[in-house]
Amino acid sequence: MTVKNIGVGMLGYAFMGKAHSYAFKNMPLFFWPPPAVPELVSIFGRTDSKVAEAAQNFGFKKYTTDWHEVIEDKEVEIIDNCLPNDMHHDISIEAIEAGKHVICEKPLAMNSRQAKEMWDVARKNSVKSMVAFNYRFVPAVGLAREIVRSERLGRIYHFRARYLQQWLRNPNTPLVWRLDKEKAGSGPIGDLGSHVFDIIRFVMGEVKAVTAISKTFVKERPLPTDKMKKGKVSVEDAFESIVEFENGATGTVEASRMATGRKNYNNFEINGEKGSIEFDMERLNELRFYSEEGDVSTIGWNNILVTESVHPFVSHYWPSGHVIGWGDTFVNEIYHFMDVVVNDKRVDPIGATFEDGYKNNVILDAIIQSTLTGKKTPIVF
Amino acid sequence: MTVKNIGVGMLGYAFMGKAHSYAFKNMPLFFWPPPAVPELVSIFGRTDSKVAEAAQNFGFKKYTTDWHEVIEDKEVEIIDNCLPNDMHHDISIEAIEAGKHVICEKPLAMNSRQAKEMWDVARKNSVKSMVAFNYRFVPAVGLAREIVRSERLGRIYHFRARYLQQWLRNPNTPLVWRLDKEKAGSGPIGDLGSHVFDIIRFVMGEVKAVTAISKTFVKERPLPTDKMKKGKVSVEDAFESIVEFENGATGTVEASRMATGRKNYNNFEINGEKGSIEFDMERLNELRFYSEEGDVSTIGWNNILVTESVHPFVSHYWPSGHVIGWGDTFVNEIYHFMDVVVNDKRVDPIGATFEDGYKNNVILDAIIQSTLTGKKTPIVF
Amino acid sequence: MTVKNIGVGMLGYAFMGKAHSYAFKNMPLFFWPPPAVPELVSIFGRTDSKVAEAAQNFGFKKYTTDWHEVIEDKEVEIIDNCLPNDMHHDISIEAIEAGKHVICEKPLAMNSRQAKEMWDVARKNSVKSMVAFNYRFVPAVGLAREIVRSERLGRIYHFRARYLQQWLRNPNTPLVWRLDKEKAGSGPIGDLGSHVFDIIRFVMGEVKAVTAISKTFVKERPLPTDKMKKGKVSVEDAFESIVEFENGATGTVEASRMATGRKNYNNFEINGEKGSIEFDMERLNELRFYSEEGDVSTIGWNNILVTESVHPFVSHYWPSGHVIGWGDTFVNEIYHFMDVVVNDKRVDPIGATFEDGYKNNVILDAIIQSTLTGKKTPIVF
Amino acid sequence: MTVKNIGVGMLGYAFMGKAHSYAFKNMPLFFWPPPAVPELVSIFGRTDSKVAEAAQNFGFKKYTTDWHEVIEDKEVEIIDNCLPNDMHHDISIEAIEAGKHVICEKPLAMNSRQAKEMWDVARKNSVKSMVAFNYRFVPAVGLAREIVRSERLGRIYHFRARYLQQWLRNPNTPLVWRLDKEKAGSGPIGDLGSHVFDIIRFVMGEVKAVTAISKTFVKERPLPTDKMKKGKVSVEDAFESIVEFENGATGTVEASRMATGRKNYNNFEINGEKGSIEFDMERLNELRFYSEEGDVSTIGWNNILVTESVHPFVSHYWPSGHVIGWGDTFVNEIYHFMDVVVNDKRVDPIGATFEDGYKNNVILDAIIQSTLTGKKTPIVF
Repeated sequence: MTVKNIGVGMLGYAFMGKAHSYAFKNMPLFFWPPPAVPELVSIFGRTDSKVAEAAQNFGFKKYTTDWHEVIEDKEVEIIDNCLPNDMHHDISIEAIEAGKHVICEKPLAMNSRQAKEMWDVARKNSVKSMVAFNYRFVPAVGLAREIVRSERLGRIYHFRARYLQQWLRNPNTPLVWRLDKEKAGSGPIGDLGSHVFDIIRFVMGEVKAVTAISKTFVKERPLPTDKMKKGKVSVEDAFESIVEFENGATGTVEASRMATGRKNYNNFEINGEKGSIEFDMERLNELRFYSEEGDVSTIGWNNILVTESVHPFVSHYWPSGHVIGWGDTFVNEIYHFMDVVVNDKRVDPIGATFEDGYKNNVILDAIIQSTLTGKKTPIVF
Repeated sequence: MTVKNIGVGMLGYAFMGKAHSYAFKNMPLFFWPPPAVPELVSIFGRTDSKVAEAAQNFGFKKYTTDWHEVIEDKEVEIIDNCLPNDMHHDISIEAIEAGKHVICEKPLAMNSRQAKEMWDVARKNSVKSMVAFNYRFVPAVGLAREIVRSERLGRIYHFRARYLQQWLRNPNTPLVWRLDKEKAGSGPIGDLGSHVFDIIRFVMGEVKAVTAISKTFVKERPLPTDKMKKGKVSVEDAFESIVEFENGATGTVEASRMATGRKNYNNFEINGEKGSIEFDMERLNELRFYSEEGDVSTIGWNNILVTESVHPFVSHYWPSGHVIGWGDTFVNEIYHFMDVVVNDKRVDPIGATFEDGYKNNVILDAIIQSTLTGKKTPIVF
Repeated sequence: MTVKNIGVGMLGYAFMGKAHSYAFKNMPLFFWPPPAVPELVSIFGRTDSKVAEAAQNFGFKKYTTDWHEVIEDKEVEIIDNCLPNDMHHDISIEAIEAGKHVICEKPLAMNSRQAKEMWDVARKNSVKSMVAFNYRFVPAVGLAREIVRSERLGRIYHFRARYLQQWLRNPNTPLVWRLDKEKAGSGPIGDLGSHVFDIIRFVMGEVKAVTAISKTFVKERPLPTDKMKKGKVSVEDAFESIVEFENGATGTVEASRMATGRKNYNNFEINGEKGSIEFDMERLNELRFYSEEGDVSTIGWNNILVTESVHPFVSHYWPSGHVIGWGDTFVNEIYHFMDVVVNDKRVDPIGATFEDGYKNNVILDAIIQSTLTGKKTPIVF
Repeated sequence: MTVKNIGVGMLGYAFMGKAHSYAFKNMPLFFWPPPAVPELVSIFGRTDSKVAEAAQNFGFKKYTTDWHEVIEDKEVEIIDNCLPNDMHHDISIEAIEAGKHVICEKPLAMNSRQAKEMWDVARKNSVKSMVAFNYRFVPAVGLAREIVRSERLGRIYHFRARYLQQWLRNPNTPLVWRLDKEKAGSGPIGDLGSHVFDIIRFVMGEVKAVTAISKTFVKERPLPTDKMKKGKVSVEDAFESIVEFENGATGTVEASRMATGRKNYNNFEINGEKGSIEFDMERLNELRFYSEEGDVSTIGWNNILVTESVHPFVSHYWPSGHVIGWGDTFVNEIYHFMDVVVNDKRVDPIGATFEDGYKNNVILDAIIQSTLTGKKTPIVF
């Protein structure tokens, strides 16, 4: 069997760089025969010694501290932008304009204005572009979407989400780049909230208006470079919002990095007239589904172990009951993107387009605006 | 052993009338020796045949369709007001002024103005008065309060609550009195939200400001008397709110009667710097507690079966692991009130005074006001 | 409405005496109109001061330290035998022969020979007799039985049960009467195992053979009267058994009082060709049901909150989602027995007859025999 | 950084071949710098077209239908034997004698006699050999072992395990090789029981005696090649056993492939004097731990999300709360073996030696013997 290769250039080697590299390496193993075999051509990072080691660790042939080199590399057909949020806009646009297919980490941009420019560039170019909202590729989230679309829930009344982490609960945790507004754009609004709002649009539909507050509980933290000195935290530690949806549903979306005991608790619940759904990312192989179908005496919350071959992506992995890990959501994502690239398919509705990324940024901007004005803010795309 | 009797007059024979009667009957069995033995003297209801049967069913000696008779009855020392919300104010005041001790169902009044008048009357009279917020008497909720007060959670960052029921999910469910603003005052704001805000004040402290929306999903429903005709629903089906607390914490409070699959899901979570708590009324014998104390490799969410003799009220029931029911929370409540009455103790902080009831109504009013103005509403007592 | 009274005589005032008294008091409240109103006539106990107080606490008119007086009491129509196991045989027989209806606590007798005699007496007399296996009256257990009988599980492959408690885990826990073979007959075999084997026969059918071991981990314990001295434990601390069923299923039954963390963990699981069931007494309001019916992508373990009016006994209690307690299983049981007595109905199949009690004792004897011989022991009634 | 390569030869390309190949590919990514980089040299399978495709899919340079070629291949230093059970003995011995390090899938052999010969060969040769009991490499299982060894449970009273699957529940499921005694040796005794008994020895210690039954519920099944014909099932569908341990504990071990609803439910529970542990492979990132340490009012079952850097192997993966999958247990296992090979370390106690494999087979033989004799069978190594 002959499978063609596609060259990949990776930007960034930290958390997301590792996760995406894992995905490129493993996609052909699970999705056999793959649309193409990713060839790990080149990786960019700012620190020479570190990117050199990352290249070896992740299996890239070349490395560089100049990202232009990756974009210009003739062996590279796909650019995977895993850089911090402030490096999404310029670099992704340059890559697209250089004729490369682009995957860009979420949130797409620092704000909706930037995102709009990226989307504009993307749609004027024939290359494929996708925002790396990997939770669309969790089998249980895909199943949730299928259930909602099958109308087994009936009219939707509520959507609620809490994306909770705990890594800033201690006031002595140092001031890392994610707490710097210049680099990160925002705190959990962009980092965690962007995931939630993408899941909402993926599973259920559009947001109509938001009302929000945010709070920075710990206003100063030790500097990573000198723990005796403190620096100012310029992003929020948490936000709470009330959300109204186009379909008439109402609910809340919250995210925090101060929720002790919650490690990666991306929890959402949907209530419809005929049924409900609940999901928690810490148990990503499970979906809880309540349905009024069937015998009335045995209705309940059905804990579905989403490891059957009928479930999204699962047939490519292990037998029933053998769970996948968080990293495997990226394998599914990379498979989808390479299938899109090689077979000239649509990124959406399974993947998130730059249009989706823009609309996501519009919602995030509205959240921030509402926290500033104290008023309900309509979503206007 | 000689235990004195105290005469009880019950107003109302429906859901709460049954629950409170159960409590009066069983209190001496569990809390032996009891402060006094309740003597079920008289019960009031509007329909003669029904109240006659209720008297027999619940064990009251007399019944009447005129509530003045109960208040004036010389054998009656305690009035238990389980009537609909619009009958709390006048009747409770009359009872207090007649020198009776009064327990009044929640919410205390139709609004904070009414509640203020009730509190004013209560404090000017020497009788005991309590609002029947029975969730204070759930052992797990009492344990939650003890944990928060012991400072094992450290600084509190978040409080979140969802009180979800499903009984109105079907648009054909008829227009009962709870959907009539004249009788009920409000929908889940008063019915469910009042419980949540009392738990907040019991466990954690005061609310500083609220921002809220509410929604009536099904605007017309069949009349109970003639299902071919429809009547207007005049209360909300659900509300969502953002809550800011005096102690600096932030969170959300939601309640709905449209949450399919949630039967009596009074769920709250508190996140502090050093630990967290989670509770769900459908599993009222359990409390989930996350603490960073102890060996770092075995930290987790600790599911406490709150059936040990060290837990609030539990030593009066069964051996470890033998769970109590929802009805037993009322037994604890009635014990507390009779102990207060007989031994001239304080209603608070374990029980809710009319002052607590008033403050609760102030918060409910602020929720309603915010739903009307679309603005954050400060809590001013 | 006229409801007749039936006089009740209670033997024993400890744990079970309290539970049964609770049930008699509350039955008419929940099961209205009741078949008859229990009149608490007389209670027997060995210690005068204690039984005097119990009479007052539980609401009995008279008390005595001579149980013959209770049996001979003309006001007494029902004898409730809550005495230790070694007092079941003689006293229950005397009560039946005196023309009283008899409820007897489980296990029915010290051994199957005794139980056979009791059954023989019972069937020769026209009074009603029942063994107080209260777990038949847990709504979730009743629902489990209905599911099995409806054939929604198909052919049954397995039944497994673990009834685990922890109250003897500490070697310094004193040598109470339950550790004395003369009084108790056996340890968890009779105390916990009898419950499990009754549930098996109630839900699924007959046992064909058992193979078992038992173990006493702590062979001597402090005397309750003098903690400096130790006495010999003469019953087992735990047993494990392999069970083969008449219907072809296989499984295990275990019970222990040394299972730290398990308070009243009466857990069983049934696996059939088309579905499975799981139950845990610490969450007695829930039943887990796995069914292959319906859409293949949403099959899972369905957690049923057994608080709907369609569930056994539930319509007599509270609205959906308002859970009952362990004590309420006795209310259901007493209702059933009084309905049987007043309306001349059959005790079985809902309640356990003395025949059921005898068959239960036969299985317990076989377990004990197998622990002695080390061999598989067939069940022969 | 220079990391040396080690050549790997894979025998088998089915379920385990895929899992092990995944592990070899990913070990260096996670365990960086790795002890050596596995070079996927050659893979053997019986069907030419299939092994050719597997080589490409998994990334092996060469393939063959003659396993001698893999063993003789000079580039190959490690042989990974993922073949059916009847091909473990001869081929593993040949590989060891050819000077190759050997990983062999479990159970080590068809019976303890074969396993003894394999162990004898292994200890006479200087190469490293390991049985691929991958559940030792589940972080939660490693944590369970650490807790037991730290004596935080105190004296151990009980160990119970249920390894339940459902894939044979339907009588029409065809007669695959795993149902053929000639190829598989046994049914769930060897397939699932071997895992459980290895976990027992890894976490807790030796088995002293077993008493067991087994059952084949469906005695004939359709042939895979011709579904109109049926063939005889020659292995058991399920077994139940009572187990006594060297440390004095007692318990049960069960396994079944007929347990509808249980997909890969490898569940065990340990009860000690001071605490207990529970694990379920379907939630492999979690461990439930009950400890009597700390404040008595907050003792409970602690659900540990085993994704912290302090937990075994976890620091090599993702941040806290980002779960790993079943496949990753093999990555840990392969890391361990390559570390052992390259750095001349001991396989045990973390990995399972051929001695462990032999002792495991002795227990399996005793289980089978007990099912035949109906008697308790002592474990004699």
